[in-house]
Amino acid sequence: MSIAEGADDGGPASAGGCTPGAAVGELGEEALLAAFTPLLPQAEQEVVPSGDDCAVVAAPDGRFCVSTDVLVQGEHFRTDWSTARDIGARAAAQNLADIAAMGAHPTALVVSLVLPRTTPVAWVQDLARGFADACRGTGAGVVGGDLSVGERVVIAVTVHGDLGGRRPVLRSGARAGDVVVHVGTLGRSAAGLALLQAGLDDRAGGSGEAAATARTGIASECIAVYRAPSPPLSAGPALADAGATAMLDVSDGLLRDAGRIARASGVVVEIAEPDDAPGAGRVGLSADLAALEPVAGMLREDAAAARALARQWVLTGGEDHGLLATFAPTAVRELPTSARVIGAVRARRVGEEAGVLLGGRVPEQLGWDHFRA
Amino acid sequence: MSIAEGADDGGPASAGGCTPGAAVGELGEEALLAAFTPLLPQAEQEVVPSGDDCAVVAAPDGRFCVSTDVLVQGEHFRTDWSTARDIGARAAAQNLADIAAMGAHPTALVVSLVLPRTTPVAWVQDLARGFADACRGTGAGVVGGDLSVGERVVIAVTVHGDLGGRRPVLRSGARAGDVVVHVGTLGRSAAGLALLQAGLDDRAGGSGEAAATARTGIASECIAVYRAPSPPLSAGPALADAGATAMLDVSDGLLRDAGRIARASGVVVEIAEPDDAPGAGRVGLSADLAALEPVAGMLREDAAAARALARQWVLTGGEDHGLLATFAPTAVRELPTSARVIGAVRARRVGEEAGVLLGGRVPEQLGWDHFRA
Repeated sequence: MSIAEGADDGGPASAGGCTPGAAVGELGEEALLAAFTPLLPQAEQEVVPSGDDCAVVAAPDGRFCVSTDVLVQGEHFRTDWSTARDIGARAAAQNLADIAAMGAHPTALVVSLVLPRTTPVAWVQDLARGFADACRGTGAGVVGGDLSVGERVVIAVTVHGDLGGRRPVLRSGARAGDVVVHVGTLGRSAAGLALLQAGLDDRAGGSGEAAATARTGIASECIAVYRAPSPPLSAGPALADAGATAMLDVSDGLLRDAGRIARASGVVVEIAEPDDAPGAGRVGLSADLAALEPVAGMLREDAAAARALARQWVLTGGEDHGLLATFAPTAVRELPTSARVIGAVRARRVGEEAGVLLGGRVPEQLGWDHFRA
Repeated sequence: MSIAEGADDGGPASAGGCTPGAAVGELGEEALLAAFTPLLPQAEQEVVPSGDDCAVVAAPDGRFCVSTDVLVQGEHFRTDWSTARDIGARAAAQNLADIAAMGAHPTALVVSLVLPRTTPVAWVQDLARGFADACRGTGAGVVGGDLSVGERVVIAVTVHGDLGGRRPVLRSGARAGDVVVHVGTLGRSAAGLALLQAGLDDRAGGSGEAAATARTGIASECIAVYRAPSPPLSAGPALADAGATAMLDVSDGLLRDAGRIARASGVVVEIAEPDDAPGAGRVGLSADLAALEPVAGMLREDAAAARALARQWVLTGGEDHGLLATFAPTAVRELPTSARVIGAVRARRVGEEAGVLLGGRVPEQLGWDHFRA
């Protein structure tokens, strides 16, 4: 299948803003590599650079963290909604967030690309620029990769990090009595996706009030987070140093990911209802809910329906890649100011399973599962 | 596109030997993970296992080697020619070979899988068994991964290795006066692919003399190497310890990969013609050529044409993943007995570019380039 025959997703050939240039199928592999590798971010810890059988990366800690995430055209991104630069930044950012969630600093990425032969070389160059955007200031860079042809774009990223002597912060360390903390945004990516699905693209021309609103303020911010999230990477090691007992990045929705900490730790994680009045030191989820209600209002006329939609985004929307962590109550005063307390950890009662509760009840919806059709 | 509508490649749904079982789209992600992760090989150097945001792997050397390779259904494998177990073993083996080619021992792999929703769970389980086959005895295991749905199977593997204090053996270290050495087989994978393309599948029933021959001896061995190569992994660190000045694994053909050492080192690599009578200590490529001539004879009636085809497989066929290395002449007596001298390195003459020569001449054909259509 050539891109020109593409289905609902227009494919890279239709990406806006590229000079048409050559297609990757017109170049040999070495010429293609020469066209985009200079645009990739450099790793500070690189000992032997890309171009040999392996890269060699320093691991001064004597251990390294490693994680991998794959993005598939049509499943994780659409090239008519996101530029190559957005997609590259997103692919890097969601991987970098996994390193932060262990309490580590990212050092090196390797990237496998599957590209249709008709993909413009300029599209691949923009993808490389997106990786550079996401890695800027982190010290991490792309140290290796592989190229193949295929019908759809697939981007498989493996990321590495250095713990700097820290104990890795696992999902399994939450203890009864801990507080639950979140750093970053919740629901923005889900809201941005919903706007794009409704045809409200802040980059498209479009007329009418809704289209104009999509180009401004919080709506545009949500679309930007959907296209390329900005996880709070430096908060990962900071939360680890502040004593995080468990941590992960929220990729599949707050409730689903909180449930993962609960089950791994054998405890109950109670998330406070966004509507609950915040108590002393409890900012909770109300700020996220309040920010997203106007965005939901662009898609639901009824105020109650809009509030329900915003609530769903906050509780079950993934891919903002904020950090969810637990702390002993005494550690809370050491937390970065960006950390918000959103719940508490308690022991299981007799006969009760480990899991997540919302406002004291089992939540109806959890969030995203990649495999159920 | 569902697998049932698949094109020339029947897709995993048609893979033989599996009980039909459930399809991956019928399971949630966690149930699918539970079905195959116990079958994956365990890593000896694993500090924090898969299941958290990252795995943590020991890097006792203070550095780690990393490389990545992606396999795409229809481009790198066909599910009607290879079982899932073959494909898993191949994906692992070609990655492990990159670690060996640096002079390192493999420690950990991460695997991103893109699967059609209709893929049988049993197929994924067999894929995991193939990874276990390839990693057996190496100490390496699968420490993490990611799953996504997509129209075609994509397997992106990232592999890590430990140098154990060794200097990494790069492509750029070959010096004038060095000898060129190969360990492993050449041309077997290309011959196996050619047999399958000609309809001579040793696992298929088939009648007639050629089909019967495909099921025996060297022909069957070639098909086995195509399906899942067995790179000489332990030879990598052994060659490094013996003083290899440059090394890589032959993935794209002897001449193309020898040219990479030549250009990276700024020298001329002269490969001896397979037909040349071996001199003292020079076994050369004649053994590979002699082994493959009967296989080529199954595809070409004319003896000269068969010999030319076998020669092409030996010189330009990739994916046996043997090790190509250079050594100072004094080091040759230290080499493992499996090492064969196949050429020599000399300085460039005035006006001459770095590159590979075959029997003193610029070769007409080099080998495989993934991107040219």
